[in-house]
Amino acid sequence: MNQALLTDLYEFSMANGYYAALPHEDEAVFDVFYRTVPDHGSFVVAAGLQQVVEALRSFHFAPADIDYLRSLKLYSEDFLHYLATLHLAVTVTALPEGTPVFPREPLLTVQGPLIQVQLLETLLLNIVNHQSLIATKARRITAAAEGRPVMEFGARRAQGPDAATYGARAAVIGGCASTSNVLAAQQFHIPAAGTMAHSWIESFPDELTAFRAWAKIYPDNSALLVDTYDVLASGVPNAITVFKELRAAGHQPVGIRIDSGDIAELAKQSRRLLDDAGFPEAKITASNALDESIIQSLLKEGAPLDNFGIGEKLITSASSPVLSGVYKLAALKSNGQWQPKIKVSATREKTTLPGRKQVYRLYRSGSRHAFADIIALADESLTATITAYNADPQATRSRVTLHDFTAVPLLSPVLTPTETTAVPTDVFAIQKHLRAALAELPAATQRLVNPDLYPVYLTPQLAELQQQLIDAHHEA
Amino acid sequence: MNQALLTDLYEFSMANGYYAALPHEDEAVFDVFYRTVPDHGSFVVAAGLQQVVEALRSFHFAPADIDYLRSLKLYSEDFLHYLATLHLAVTVTALPEGTPVFPREPLLTVQGPLIQVQLLETLLLNIVNHQSLIATKARRITAAAEGRPVMEFGARRAQGPDAATYGARAAVIGGCASTSNVLAAQQFHIPAAGTMAHSWIESFPDELTAFRAWAKIYPDNSALLVDTYDVLASGVPNAITVFKELRAAGHQPVGIRIDSGDIAELAKQSRRLLDDAGFPEAKITASNALDESIIQSLLKEGAPLDNFGIGEKLITSASSPVLSGVYKLAALKSNGQWQPKIKVSATREKTTLPGRKQVYRLYRSGSRHAFADIIALADESLTATITAYNADPQATRSRVTLHDFTAVPLLSPVLTPTETTAVPTDVFAIQKHLRAALAELPAATQRLVNPDLYPVYLTPQLAELQQQLIDAHHEA
Repeated sequence: MNQALLTDLYEFSMANGYYAALPHEDEAVFDVFYRTVPDHGSFVVAAGLQQVVEALRSFHFAPADIDYLRSLKLYSEDFLHYLATLHLAVTVTALPEGTPVFPREPLLTVQGPLIQVQLLETLLLNIVNHQSLIATKARRITAAAEGRPVMEFGARRAQGPDAATYGARAAVIGGCASTSNVLAAQQFHIPAAGTMAHSWIESFPDELTAFRAWAKIYPDNSALLVDTYDVLASGVPNAITVFKELRAAGHQPVGIRIDSGDIAELAKQSRRLLDDAGFPEAKITASNALDESIIQSLLKEGAPLDNFGIGEKLITSASSPVLSGVYKLAALKSNGQWQPKIKVSATREKTTLPGRKQVYRLYRSGSRHAFADIIALADESLTATITAYNADPQATRSRVTLHDFTAVPLLSPVLTPTETTAVPTDVFAIQKHLRAALAELPAATQRLVNPDLYPVYLTPQLAELQQQLIDAHHEA
Repeated sequence: MNQALLTDLYEFSMANGYYAALPHEDEAVFDVFYRTVPDHGSFVVAAGLQQVVEALRSFHFAPADIDYLRSLKLYSEDFLHYLATLHLAVTVTALPEGTPVFPREPLLTVQGPLIQVQLLETLLLNIVNHQSLIATKARRITAAAEGRPVMEFGARRAQGPDAATYGARAAVIGGCASTSNVLAAQQFHIPAAGTMAHSWIESFPDELTAFRAWAKIYPDNSALLVDTYDVLASGVPNAITVFKELRAAGHQPVGIRIDSGDIAELAKQSRRLLDDAGFPEAKITASNALDESIIQSLLKEGAPLDNFGIGEKLITSASSPVLSGVYKLAALKSNGQWQPKIKVSATREKTTLPGRKQVYRLYRSGSRHAFADIIALADESLTATITAYNADPQATRSRVTLHDFTAVPLLSPVLTPTETTAVPTDVFAIQKHLRAALAELPAATQRLVNPDLYPVYLTPQLAELQQQLIDAHHEA
């Protein structure tokens, strides 16, 4: 299926309208940003940029697509010809994948002919909203696991094949160590994880026979699933029997997985049995509908867990399954003149930020401690002292004076009409970028429950431009 | 990307293990079923069968897939050769898409060589769980809309490209009339819906100019978005101006869309303005984060709405984003002998139903009123009077006597090693099948909140077989 048609009909209808009604040289800038963080967190982990760039580089309409669009009897032949021969000429700037991004900050901007940038809205939002949602959830879950490896196990409950595969990619960006999804493992060079299901055990006359058959084939990969019948009465004792046989044959037993029951209690008692039998190095993995709050609760109870396998709660971000990123017009170039644009809403919260913009992360001078972000117009230079406005209209303190800071710009070009900057594709390098970025952010901002809000400011120039456009709108 | 690798690693590991440890003639039957209905409903709408059949018909491992699996250094060359030359020889039975299916009922069964059926688990669950989830949600939303057309608008918030496209398909199965997703519209012959975004309005000097430009291009498709600036002070008056111009030119105005604010109140006042201006036939469409409970509340308040556009709450089933369908071993054929299999859990609820099975919908004799389902062994014949057991172990009334019924089997073969039955691919025919099936079910079972449970029984033969296997398990 050609992704160019993965577009809301109204994008085509508007593009056909622009083609008919406006000069074709008219250009526009759209920003992708969001307003609300899933799970009441304070930031989102940006993800999906590699797939955005790939989608744009291969963007085209096949003859069958044009035939289909013609069959709708809505669009002019001139416009259909334009689509059939379209070569995108857009410039994309973006934050690197794995960057923590705060509400209202543009995380991706697209500039180019209005007709073209309009057509990209749905596809870009789909990719960025999905992967950023899952990366954000994975950050939460891996933070709860406090360094213990988390395996992504959700393919069977993902919302379709792509959700499983790109979701696994995003899960690794957010902090996961591996995935059970072999396609994702192959495509994105992620370690593939997993051992056996209950059906393996049931396919043999008894559990011990099943474990032995496994250990014979995988003597160095013997993570045994111990809850098919009874974890403490049968599973762990049988596992210990097989571990002893493996050790006698010169192999190192891996450990056990518990997938049901009272995991905290079962893990404690299993740990004792394994230790008493001389296997203190055998790992205990927990799975079964876990998420960050269950992991925190298990660890708080002292459950001796070494690894987590996380399924549906991660791959769907089940407790908060939507990232509502939007794509909003920021500027329009008409008759060769750029004009900043705004969408004025009844609430200040939903009023957009006009103009082509840059986002800076602000560090205390000479340190790696980020203390705020500031959104500026793309063509302004930050001064050493800034009287900045809080981007959050609800903030108590609406103006602050900033000085003694180092500002690092976050948005950079990744695609122009003539070239593509190589974006990182190594998911573990992206994960590392996230880890480094998190180390710079206040700990309180990263709290899983009730996080401290991280301030995002507007430069005076941007704030004034927004106010001017609001005033002009109300006068009109 | 080849879907054959969209499989959890442990499926390959188990298949390689079966290849090494068990006779290759060993066959198995697995059932797909679920235990919990999303949104506390009483049934799920089965969906995804067309994609299951397509996936199985094209199932193969490409040389690059084999190379990747070899690189894991887990599997034998014999097994990799088996995969490289694999032709699936499985038999699939299933309920027709669009059938309401109750907890514990097999909705799809797969029979074939153990190695093969094990490898299909993840992919089949992914497809069926996703599409059934969205079809189930769409049934709820369209039920709340009480016959008013519902447009699926969620592509930008779907969990990846496939989730948008197959989700739109499932949404139509569940009752939606159209989709904004052009790719889904093309692939599945669904009407494509939608008109303009706020950015269209903002691209012109003012709203009236934007509306006029639209009406000029789409004189017969003039659904105008009226909330860019102010619905009642600007949007609807400007729409009326353009509607008058359209009518004067011999065109029929379509209506307006409201995407923000207090939709109930705005719709009432917009209706009055439109009626007073002589446009009682102009439709009012509501969108913006609606779901079944908001629709019910809007209609209860008397909001004069004609259509709904539903985005993220439908395409992600946001209030209940996971359908936890499972794939469980029901029987194993070893040395030419079929043996029913069971997974015994600590709770009766999670103990599986053994054997190859059939599901019957029971109707009062001579009527189309379904009053219960019964799960039977595949090879038994139903008698005229049955002392049946409730499939729900929590049910107060665990045994009932059934008589004077007509039993209609629901599972039928859709794929065998040698042939494929044509499964319906017309999504509106599948939607019609759902509507007919719903007309046969008690209204109380279809309630959106606190539905009455619909009874699902087991035949005495099946219940006894389950009990025998539980007893044998505890004696072992």
